[in-house]
Amino acid sequence: MKFCCDKDILLNALNTVYRACSSKTAKPILECILIKSNANFITLTGNNLELGIETTIEVDVIEAGEIALEAKLFLEIVRKLSNGDVEVTLIPSNIVTIISGKSKFSVSTQNPKDFPTLPEVISDKSFSISKHDLKEMIRQTIFSVAQDDSRPIFTGEMFEIQNGSFNLVSVDGFRISYRNLSIENKDLKMEQVVPGKTLQEIAKILNDDSEKVKIYFGENHVLFDLDTSKVISRLLEGEFLKYNQVFSNDFDTQILINRIDFLMSIERAALISREGKKTPVCLDITDENIIITSNTEIGTSREELEIELTGNPLKIAFNPKFLIDALKIIEDEKININFLSKIAPAIIQPLDNNSYKYLVLPIRINE
Amino acid sequence: MKFCCDKDILLNALNTVYRACSSKTAKPILECILIKSNANFITLTGNNLELGIETTIEVDVIEAGEIALEAKLFLEIVRKLSNGDVEVTLIPSNIVTIISGKSKFSVSTQNPKDFPTLPEVISDKSFSISKHDLKEMIRQTIFSVAQDDSRPIFTGEMFEIQNGSFNLVSVDGFRISYRNLSIENKDLKMEQVVPGKTLQEIAKILNDDSEKVKIYFGENHVLFDLDTSKVISRLLEGEFLKYNQVFSNDFDTQILINRIDFLMSIERAALISREGKKTPVCLDITDENIIITSNTEIGTSREELEIELTGNPLKIAFNPKFLIDALKIIEDEKININFLSKIAPAIIQPLDNNSYKYLVLPIRINE
Repeated sequence: MKFCCDKDILLNALNTVYRACSSKTAKPILECILIKSNANFITLTGNNLELGIETTIEVDVIEAGEIALEAKLFLEIVRKLSNGDVEVTLIPSNIVTIISGKSKFSVSTQNPKDFPTLPEVISDKSFSISKHDLKEMIRQTIFSVAQDDSRPIFTGEMFEIQNGSFNLVSVDGFRISYRNLSIENKDLKMEQVVPGKTLQEIAKILNDDSEKVKIYFGENHVLFDLDTSKVISRLLEGEFLKYNQVFSNDFDTQILINRIDFLMSIERAALISREGKKTPVCLDITDENIIITSNTEIGTSREELEIELTGNPLKIAFNPKFLIDALKIIEDEKININFLSKIAPAIIQPLDNNSYKYLVLPIRINE
Repeated sequence: MKFCCDKDILLNALNTVYRACSSKTAKPILECILIKSNANFITLTGNNLELGIETTIEVDVIEAGEIALEAKLFLEIVRKLSNGDVEVTLIPSNIVTIISGKSKFSVSTQNPKDFPTLPEVISDKSFSISKHDLKEMIRQTIFSVAQDDSRPIFTGEMFEIQNGSFNLVSVDGFRISYRNLSIENKDLKMEQVVPGKTLQEIAKILNDDSEKVKIYFGENHVLFDLDTSKVISRLLEGEFLKYNQVFSNDFDTQILINRIDFLMSIERAALISREGKKTPVCLDITDENIIITSNTEIGTSREELEIELTGNPLKIAFNPKFLIDALKIIEDEKININFLSKIAPAIIQPLDNNSYKYLVLPIRINE
């Protein structure tokens, strides 16, 4: 095999597929990138068996073939090359030479036949969404996927689609993030859970433009078709939370509050409550304002903010991190928070925007 | 004690003195910042017993006094406050309140009498240098102070002054960085070694302007007077290397080479030699060019660069990191490298600039 192409184009492709390569594994082939020629293209593939990414670039193919190269080393070499053309050649003894200007590298390769084939996704369930929208939806929900493996299904996010509505939902036992978007495909009805790690990597590859991503769901895998790149991930199995039952529109107390002011106040209060120890931040909601306090052996803090109250005053306490996470990813100026009681979950929602909502459990306090 | 001042001014002062506070220590008072009022000023002090920093800012002193506050917490609180005035008040039970807008913090304090006084530096040895020059000199030499404590004197940099010439020198057993600057004080003659950690912190405080820093050397301490801030550090005791004996002007081989090209080539070769294992990068200097090779179980690399050679061809090998460090901090386009033999140190110097030189030991190779 022999091909020649521009350094920056090759580097860009390597940066994309590298996200699916294993870094430390007992199987060295999973640390490789497979490169396969096809007419005047090469396809680069990374595959750690959970997640696979392939991308195709136009190059000058001088001799057809395929090679499997250690991903990290190859990426670092290409990154450090001076600008211009790079020539990659397989020579006898399974050595690949990488030549650019007066730089020449020789590195050993793995057997490309050992590289695991990406699963084929046979699907009659698909829909399209813009890259920008998908990136945003992931950003607004990914932070509340479960971090531990005690319930593996919650380490993923649910893709729930019906009646032309796409809901992306994550839950970690303390809170639920929900984001909704209308899609064109009105007939599709499905629920599937995609691993959080897959979505994190996809969000990094997606740029902010309005081009479409087409998403295909197969029996065990999902395929994100990003035009020149394809991302294939296994799906998680198990029963997701019936989250709809817990998002209620009823409230006994509702406040309207400036998001940034509330975020800054909670962040300050959190300095006193200091995360590790999970000391709550207390909210005292009165007719005129909200008083935010924290109290630990370090000291105390007290903040006062204006609110508009509907319903009854309330005292309630939260883990400040769980409030901060949601307040950071909302972009609207004003938010509503609905409360039922001091032991029931609260629901945070932007004032003029139904596409996002966030549910968070309070911490019980003694008064 | 009670004072009021602008948040940003207070934050800036805290960021400066915080650099001298201990982070984890058996003596909680060393994790504190001492604040002392004086007319319409307050002086903030951090002191970890190796390094002390004090800075003075103009504030509205409402009640004179002094307090010792946990540095990290106080800094984080002030950083998160909204812009505007901050009021700091000592109330009974050794509690300090920090009030800004509708935010109020109460935190406990330490006894300010326990705070260690900064040593007084009585000195008849002093000189001045611009902030910009001092920052640059530290940047160009700090990377080769010894990282381990086996010879404590080499964890510092030597300030060597005579005949209006100031030399800053560091050495770690494998290489020597030397930087020179003319100073106005022609009568001063001295040699003192300042801890590397002190210089790192000073470099962070110094801005890039042409204002002067005045440096006073006492018997055991050095004082850097930065106008509104003072940095006091202990000096290191012991005998520094007689480095002048090893910087020779003799050479058997001299090359003139483009610095950036050489740096990029060595960085690429280092990918194959991979730091941890200390495999050398080999330089083969011929009449026309330099050939840079590395060869490990990962693979091989070969680079060719144009040079101008004076003297004899030579083959020599180096730890690539030791070349990269120096090539990065030089700013000139072209450099000279002088060699005596394949087992003698090489000396790197910018072509038209005698103020910087760098000596590095080769690695023995078998041919």
